[in-house]
Amino acid sequence: MSKINEYPSIVKCSHEKNGFPCFIPAQRVLNLVGKKWSIQLINVLSDGRKVRYKELRELLHKGWKQNKISDATLSARLNELSEEGLLLRDIHAEIPPKVEYSLSEKGEELSKALQPLIEWTIKACHE
Amino acid sequence: MSKINEYPSIVKCSHEKNGFPCFIPAQRVLNLVGKKWSIQLINVLSDGRKVRYKELRELLHKGWKQNKISDATLSARLNELSEEGLLLRDIHAEIPPKVEYSLSEKGEELSKALQPLIEWTIKACHE
Repeated sequence: MSKINEYPSIVKCSHEKNGFPCFIPAQRVLNLVGKKWSIQLINVLSDGRKVRYKELRELLHKGWKQNKISDATLSARLNELSEEGLLLRDIHAEIPPKVEYSLSEKGEELSKALQPLIEWTIKACHE
Repeated sequence: MSKINEYPSIVKCSHEKNGFPCFIPAQRVLNLVGKKWSIQLINVLSDGRKVRYKELRELLHKGWKQNKISDATLSARLNELSEEGLLLRDIHAEIPPKVEYSLSEKGEELSKALQPLIEWTIKACHE
């Protein structure tokens, strides 16, 4: 959060200033998505998948066995993505209550916009 | 740097683990590029531009008048990008010495890979 708050909140984003695009929203998203497990979460939920909390943990651990995600971290990441309007919680009135997580339309767009960066980093890492 | 070091350095990146892509290099780049002024710097230097230190400062300030970059911050960002192999320093043996900064091939690739994300964030910010 610190990076985001370094910019005075009074500053409104505009498409450009003297021919410069405004990079504040990009910087904000980069800091959000750069947090541990965020990209993995977005990846697991992309393409319209709906996943329950427990399954989310299992899916993340399938990909990263050496470094388990804690409940506190997973909850924090889910809250952050939700507050940013990227994540939806679908709560079913059952006993016990069933909660499914999925990406919002905005989240799916972000997921697609991140793909070239992810592909390039994986490629660049192996050169 | 802290985010990067959260992962044990002994872990080698692999394209996938049980069908999962490895996101460590993406996370690393997101944290590097999410730092204040980094995207602006990459943007200013993209498309093969060669810019001197003083001009760099002026270009950054043209786009962001309310929030000046300090010499310490600009130097730190230039060093980080350089260490990551994204930035080139072209030192001309003149008096006074002339140093020109430009993106390496890897830096230009990163700049292109970041475009969809930047475009999406600017669009999403205005909806």
